[in-house]
Amino acid sequence: MTAMNNLNLDEAALSAALKSCQARVQEVLAQCLPGESAYLERLHQAMRYAVLNGGKRVRAALVYLTGQALAGQALADRTIKNSEGSRSPGPNGVYLDRAAAAVELIHAYSLVHDDLPCMDDDALRRGVPTCHIKFNEATAMLAGDALQTLAFELLAGDGLERHPNAAEMVAVLAKASGAAGMAGGQAIDLAAVGKALTLTELQTMHELKTGALIRGAVRLGALCTSAPGDARIEPLDRYAYRIGLAFQIQDDILDVEGDTTTLGKRQGADEALDKPTYPALLGLEEAKSMAFTMHEEAIKALQGFDSRADPLRWLSAFIIARTH
Amino acid sequence: MTAMNNLNLDEAALSAALKSCQARVQEVLAQCLPGESAYLERLHQAMRYAVLNGGKRVRAALVYLTGQALAGQALADRTIKNSEGSRSPGPNGVYLDRAAAAVELIHAYSLVHDDLPCMDDDALRRGVPTCHIKFNEATAMLAGDALQTLAFELLAGDGLERHPNAAEMVAVLAKASGAAGMAGGQAIDLAAVGKALTLTELQTMHELKTGALIRGAVRLGALCTSAPGDARIEPLDRYAYRIGLAFQIQDDILDVEGDTTTLGKRQGADEALDKPTYPALLGLEEAKSMAFTMHEEAIKALQGFDSRADPLRWLSAFIIARTH
Repeated sequence: MTAMNNLNLDEAALSAALKSCQARVQEVLAQCLPGESAYLERLHQAMRYAVLNGGKRVRAALVYLTGQALAGQALADRTIKNSEGSRSPGPNGVYLDRAAAAVELIHAYSLVHDDLPCMDDDALRRGVPTCHIKFNEATAMLAGDALQTLAFELLAGDGLERHPNAAEMVAVLAKASGAAGMAGGQAIDLAAVGKALTLTELQTMHELKTGALIRGAVRLGALCTSAPGDARIEPLDRYAYRIGLAFQIQDDILDVEGDTTTLGKRQGADEALDKPTYPALLGLEEAKSMAFTMHEEAIKALQGFDSRADPLRWLSAFIIARTH
Repeated sequence: MTAMNNLNLDEAALSAALKSCQARVQEVLAQCLPGESAYLERLHQAMRYAVLNGGKRVRAALVYLTGQALAGQALADRTIKNSEGSRSPGPNGVYLDRAAAAVELIHAYSLVHDDLPCMDDDALRRGVPTCHIKFNEATAMLAGDALQTLAFELLAGDGLERHPNAAEMVAVLAKASGAAGMAGGQAIDLAAVGKALTLTELQTMHELKTGALIRGAVRLGALCTSAPGDARIEPLDRYAYRIGLAFQIQDDILDVEGDTTTLGKRQGADEALDKPTYPALLGLEEAKSMAFTMHEEAIKALQGFDSRADPLRWLSAFIIARTH
């Protein structure tokens, strides 16, 4: 892993950028999730529990940082002070928030359903009980269902605040998360337990299961600030494809190398379920090398972008350098 | 039930209209559902199984018949023959198809999840094994997830064929099916098992669980052919609200009166689960009377509409006259 020393990663700056994205999407999510009401108390609690319990918010950060790469620093602050000093949302910033929240809602719903007994049967997520353990299976399933719906409701927007690309954004998120994306990847994952996959098959699974939503996040960030046919979207998509793969390879590596305390989940969980992983197929060192190659190609895809894309570059480096 | 004799119901004409809607949405659904592919075979099969296995398609019919009530007979044929004699879609008809298919996909996903062991634990639906019995729980859950996603993907449309109201339609369907609609109603239903509900509470549950999607179907039909602020949408919404309640009351009545062969599900299933029903709360005759009142009010709401709304009127009558 000597190559790792060459990573052009400003950890302090990235950490600040990610913290800012995390805080921002957390605020948006807390606002858009339903409050508690008499009959629906448990459902709403379960939805909030599943979403607001931290997480790296990498997908939300990709939305924000892509918007920033395309439109500049102005977007980093979504609000503008009015004459009375109170804040009101800027036009594109509102949709960056909506898109960032939407991808996190989709991610959260997929985790809730993935943790259920009929899927991975996980009792622990981010160091705390999974949704169906904290509530019950039926409530967790419904909460997941409603989180997916909320993601599309957010993106569709309402009358006054509707983005001209709103319908296109819904289409992008749906493609990324449905049968041809995330849900399809989960189905392949399910079918793969106990089976030997080739590297190509493993890659296809991850392209759908996690890659599609990561690419979707980048595309959504771009659609907040540019037209659907903008020529800058294609290289951003190549970037997103690479970091998506790197992200998954690194996840597999961490599952071998990490421990339960750091990861907040059972170490070796995938191995225990006899699921195919990159280290299992390639060996640990080769898997690390492949992650690094993906990072290099991601950086190359961004060569036409100026320093406003630096946080995206750092994020790529961080993905393969992270330890949890 | 002497009042039933006064129903202004042209059964033959309604039957023809419904059959036409059923056939049309069936064709659209068969086209929009993913075909079978190597890895995703089981997921795709489960999705198709859950959707294409019949059903009354009342929600799809509401979309089409509302479009027809507002825009006239031209919409009943979505295709126009070109010079070579092959058919190409008309502009609004495409979206009536998309909206009709979308509400049926949402309905189908909710049934798949509702039938799961952690929810109602039903093994039989429309006379055949439920999705999780035919496949397995994990596949059924994922299929339901992906069906929801597909509904929004359809409505969002793609570039060339995107309706100007596409984003508004996504917002309408999301509101109708999420935590403040169908999923919320299911959560109340879940919490209500074994509990005594008042009539108001029962009504709230049904307004969300089934009423919201029925109202959503009518609103979607309207949005295919008119602007979101069209004054004719409000009376159509009142109509939809009434027939939604009538539909559920009649369902409860049929659960008491019907038999397993006619219904395709276990008769008395709700009673067996100690779920609150209208007949249980009001008595059978009073429940029938309430359904009829809802029908009368639905007809009244349509008084400003001409004969193009007759199929909607017949449908209201049919809902309380149906025996399965």
